[in-house]
Amino acid sequence: MMHTSDYIAKYKSRFIEELMAFLRIPSISTMPEHKQDIKQAANFIKDQLVAAGADKAWIIETTGHPLVYGEKIIDRQLPTVLVYGHYDVQPAEPYELWNSKPFEPLIKGDKIFARGAADDKGQFYIHVKALETMIATQSLPCNIKFLIEGEEEMGSGSLTNFLEDSANHNLLQADAILVSDTTIISMDQPSLTTGLRGIVYLEVTLTGANRDLHSGVYGGAVANPINILCKMLAALHDENGHITIPGFYDEVPDLTVAERAELNSIPFDLEAYKQTLGINEVIGEKGYTTLERVGIRPSLDVNGIWGGYIGTGAKTVLPSQAHAKVSMRLAPNQDAQKVMNAFVSYFSSLAPKGTQVAIKPYHGGCNAVVLDKNSLAFRAAENAFETVWGKHPFTTREGGSIPIIAKFKEKLGTDAVLMGFGLDTDAIHSPNEHFSLIAFFKGISTVIKFYENLAALYKK
Amino acid sequence: MMHTSDYIAKYKSRFIEELMAFLRIPSISTMPEHKQDIKQAANFIKDQLVAAGADKAWIIETTGHPLVYGEKIIDRQLPTVLVYGHYDVQPAEPYELWNSKPFEPLIKGDKIFARGAADDKGQFYIHVKALETMIATQSLPCNIKFLIEGEEEMGSGSLTNFLEDSANHNLLQADAILVSDTTIISMDQPSLTTGLRGIVYLEVTLTGANRDLHSGVYGGAVANPINILCKMLAALHDENGHITIPGFYDEVPDLTVAERAELNSIPFDLEAYKQTLGINEVIGEKGYTTLERVGIRPSLDVNGIWGGYIGTGAKTVLPSQAHAKVSMRLAPNQDAQKVMNAFVSYFSSLAPKGTQVAIKPYHGGCNAVVLDKNSLAFRAAENAFETVWGKHPFTTREGGSIPIIAKFKEKLGTDAVLMGFGLDTDAIHSPNEHFSLIAFFKGISTVIKFYENLAALYKK
Repeated sequence: MMHTSDYIAKYKSRFIEELMAFLRIPSISTMPEHKQDIKQAANFIKDQLVAAGADKAWIIETTGHPLVYGEKIIDRQLPTVLVYGHYDVQPAEPYELWNSKPFEPLIKGDKIFARGAADDKGQFYIHVKALETMIATQSLPCNIKFLIEGEEEMGSGSLTNFLEDSANHNLLQADAILVSDTTIISMDQPSLTTGLRGIVYLEVTLTGANRDLHSGVYGGAVANPINILCKMLAALHDENGHITIPGFYDEVPDLTVAERAELNSIPFDLEAYKQTLGINEVIGEKGYTTLERVGIRPSLDVNGIWGGYIGTGAKTVLPSQAHAKVSMRLAPNQDAQKVMNAFVSYFSSLAPKGTQVAIKPYHGGCNAVVLDKNSLAFRAAENAFETVWGKHPFTTREGGSIPIIAKFKEKLGTDAVLMGFGLDTDAIHSPNEHFSLIAFFKGISTVIKFYENLAALYKK
Repeated sequence: MMHTSDYIAKYKSRFIEELMAFLRIPSISTMPEHKQDIKQAANFIKDQLVAAGADKAWIIETTGHPLVYGEKIIDRQLPTVLVYGHYDVQPAEPYELWNSKPFEPLIKGDKIFARGAADDKGQFYIHVKALETMIATQSLPCNIKFLIEGEEEMGSGSLTNFLEDSANHNLLQADAILVSDTTIISMDQPSLTTGLRGIVYLEVTLTGANRDLHSGVYGGAVANPINILCKMLAALHDENGHITIPGFYDEVPDLTVAERAELNSIPFDLEAYKQTLGINEVIGEKGYTTLERVGIRPSLDVNGIWGGYIGTGAKTVLPSQAHAKVSMRLAPNQDAQKVMNAFVSYFSSLAPKGTQVAIKPYHGGCNAVVLDKNSLAFRAAENAFETVWGKHPFTTREGGSIPIIAKFKEKLGTDAVLMGFGLDTDAIHSPNEHFSLIAFFKGISTVIKFYENLAALYKK
């Protein structure tokens, strides 16, 4: 029987070709015009799981985008791992900033460029190829279940509904959940993510007059919704970068000296960080380091704004409406619903007479999560990194959110291990998203080692 | 020989059909893709002037959009009037808010709906039909010259260049300039505009990181250009609605008690104004009435803003750039170039470290104008309104800007008479722009009466 590393080496180019086929499907979950692509991506994964040697795999229809389930059960006495991932991707706008087409994957050097290359198709596909390798080399030491969704980028509504129904819990029963949708510190320094921020996302519309007006005839006498929306959004931060929503920080715990020390212990080069981003200064909440700001402190960002005339040239319009998309990242202990309500109440209060504000909350808000660093699965992951990457992994807090992780814990009682292989520089959600093929193949080996370690730890 | 009113009555439907043909040409000057439409509109006007009985008319090519010149000289001893107008129109966005297609004119009741119906095609076409009527009925008592441009909505650059060249001044020599591109108070109360605000227009771009970022991974630690642009734009007004740019008000004259009384003497129903606009309160500079705010006080409006993700659904992006179009309306005595420089200097100073600001001034800034209320032409216009509309016209200050009016005075030494027939409710620059056909035909009669009065006044 071939060794796993020989098997991976032998089929390397096929693995890459398959990943490219997966990346070619523009499975953008938030855009209704991509519904067929979403279906195609779900079927692609189902077929790939079967091809990899899963006992069975099937599509679970939902009121939204389908889930894909698959499993390989070798022995009910052995530990079972539920692999979670998502086959949907973010929109690719702005297209003009891409150096290659977002859905025509391009390999340059050791990187593959495409929307979804890192988030999450490339990372999730590691697990499909690890499954294939272990089955083909008869080295699979655990039971593996796969649950792959198509709504992660729009709030995981259908999967949340699926988890709400306890009739589905038996199917998903596992000793650990394994997810690759986060980052490591660098290709030289692996890390495991032990915390994620929560998120709340809303769209606000401010309306002034009942129609667009001429800015000469009305300018200075009638509320301009753009000017006022800017004022309202600006009022959400004070001069120290604190969020001004009343009660916003009530549940945010003060960081202890030990926590701060741990958060700041990971290798971080602020000068290199600024250089990579092309900025001469970082900006954020006063009194906190960059690692604290993104790792554990809450934040508020306008993710999109539009209003008035945005075409070529000048138009002297005083628009009827202005719009913005606003998201908040939450610290551990903040309640997403409570923050949502506080935002709605405060933001509405900022609208002056002569204007009307409408706020549309998006689904999929979630609380932050803090994961167990003492579980067998976590130790199996730490050791796998140490073996394959030659360095003990740091533990990090990640600024992003994976809403479903908290839901898994709540509904199944199962903790997740966030064994990501991405890099902060992968440009996820941005033009020119890419993923390291070195990380992809090292990822397959790390996942295989994880199962080996986990089986051994459970035997003890 | 037929009387002018009989002639107008006889050819009423043809006049409307011709106006509709003019309105069908999407001559949007600011959008390069409409270059051919601009040419077509210029030729249409040239042909119409010849058809109306002009001695000659021709296209004057420029580096931008063409000018159209035409003339009917009956006797060099008689007064000569230069009619100015523009055949270009504003963009029609947002299309979805139009109840009919912007370039398929629709008559509903006594109104004609189309982009340019009031600004300025419908108003300007009054003069073409007045010319035809007077020539056909052998009642033309003055010499008339026409100078029609295609860049009014983009700053009148080519016409300005044309005026800068003194070799062209003889061609444009006239005793008065007559312009219909402004409004009357209501269909029951005519008025003549004696002042226009100046304008300065700029586009600003704020850049943070060198690429779009994930708002989870970077949110709270890196400048978000949208949040910061909002803050910078908000900082341009204080809590009393005053503009905060240092030195901005230095040249703005304090209003005298008499001036304020005159400005506020015209019939104005604030409740009706609010009701028409669908707002419960007006907002503006503290200490001034609505008529003062739009008539003579300067203002600053964001005419467009965009940045980040503005499509359907949620995208957690922290964008690299955010943009806004900003215009300022100027009071008499303010210098457009000085205001422009003050804005650039102050706005740049508001950008924090970690961001870069770029400011692109648009051409066509202009100072405010205050017109002579004692000229023969002004008296001829007053009396024409009184005869045709049955009421003495009020004099008003209009908030909009017609940059070329100041240029005419500077280069030709000739004052303009702003004999507009529009209404504030015509929705110019907005969806569902329209023009009253009653105003159109009353306008033709008023213009004819103006020439009769002017000739009589010059004879005295």
